[in-house]
Amino acid sequence: MLCLRTRRERWNEMTSSGGTVDRTHQLSETVALLARTPAVLDALLRGLPEIWTLRNEGGLTWSPLHVVAHLIHAERTNVMPRVRVLLEFGETQSFAPFEREPAQEHRPLAQLLDEFAQLRRENLAALEALHLTEEDLDRRGEHPAFGSVTLAQLLATWAAHDLTHLHQLSRVMAYQYREAVGPWSAYLGVLRCNGHSS
Amino acid sequence: MLCLRTRRERWNEMTSSGGTVDRTHQLSETVALLARTPAVLDALLRGLPEIWTLRNEGGLTWSPLHVVAHLIHAERTNVMPRVRVLLEFGETQSFAPFEREPAQEHRPLAQLLDEFAQLRRENLAALEALHLTEEDLDRRGEHPAFGSVTLAQLLATWAAHDLTHLHQLSRVMAYQYREAVGPWSAYLGVLRCNGHSS
Repeated sequence: MLCLRTRRERWNEMTSSGGTVDRTHQLSETVALLARTPAVLDALLRGLPEIWTLRNEGGLTWSPLHVVAHLIHAERTNVMPRVRVLLEFGETQSFAPFEREPAQEHRPLAQLLDEFAQLRRENLAALEALHLTEEDLDRRGEHPAFGSVTLAQLLATWAAHDLTHLHQLSRVMAYQYREAVGPWSAYLGVLRCNGHSS
Repeated sequence: MLCLRTRRERWNEMTSSGGTVDRTHQLSETVALLARTPAVLDALLRGLPEIWTLRNEGGLTWSPLHVVAHLIHAERTNVMPRVRVLLEFGETQSFAPFEREPAQEHRPLAQLLDEFAQLRRENLAALEALHLTEEDLDRRGEHPAFGSVTLAQLLATWAAHDLTHLHQLSRVMAYQYREAVGPWSAYLGVLRCNGHSS
């Protein structure tokens, strides 16, 4: 335990708000996470019974299939286009607003998982080809809703966006068993998650 | 969309509280999910930078490494021992209480992931060897806190317990970027999750 605490303390020192954050190091951590998400979704969803993949939380909420469709949409239209606008125009041109609702989705889940994996590979290759420096990561762009943001923040959000949808997927899947678990629902935090924004 | 809605409606009919639930069908859905969790955790965590695997949400909260240690502990001491007590003693003997806090953990994450995968394989093989019937799944045992529960509920909880910890993992990991994302934190639901029970 001592060993783990010491390692945690080291990380806390490295990244505490009082210290300086090494943005290129953070970028490598971001990319490490982004590169895994397709395999995570594959392991979690491909070939699973439809109760886990096609059902939602009622009404117009999203099923896991719709979450994957949304991630594809984000991969196509959101992060890398914004990276390019930021690097080319800085704060003089706002990012295009991101349409968060996915289009109606008729494709099977297996096809969506393949497409997401392909797009993510292409986007990470495009990101790597930019050879971003510490100075690049501090450059600023203009978000249409909340104004000035840095490239480092945009790229960190790409990773956190994957995690927010993994959080959503686990919640949507658990929801299907909300009655099946009987009295254990009291012990399962995921069944009391109010959904937040997604 | 019509096609998906129709499939969803079919599921809703099959599993609505007004209808009858096919418990052996549900068991196959439970097992399908349980069998994937080791690969999901592997894809999500193995070899990732330590910011994603060793950091927690502050204080005595759990890091992803501790979540995997907890899942190992649950695999060893919780579900299958309870299944056996239920089948042997019914409601005449309470399950042993489950100690939710994992022991201090010194082993590296890669070893924990291997161990979890091995234990899950063994437990699913043991479950399959029971050849549970519809009648077995309706049999009742005695939970030390909330009394009478069915075997079907216990097994559904095994799957939902995986999902509650996947929900926790995504939240703990996202927490590490709570400052890095800057103003985007307003859009990332996972950063506003209050943790619920885990």
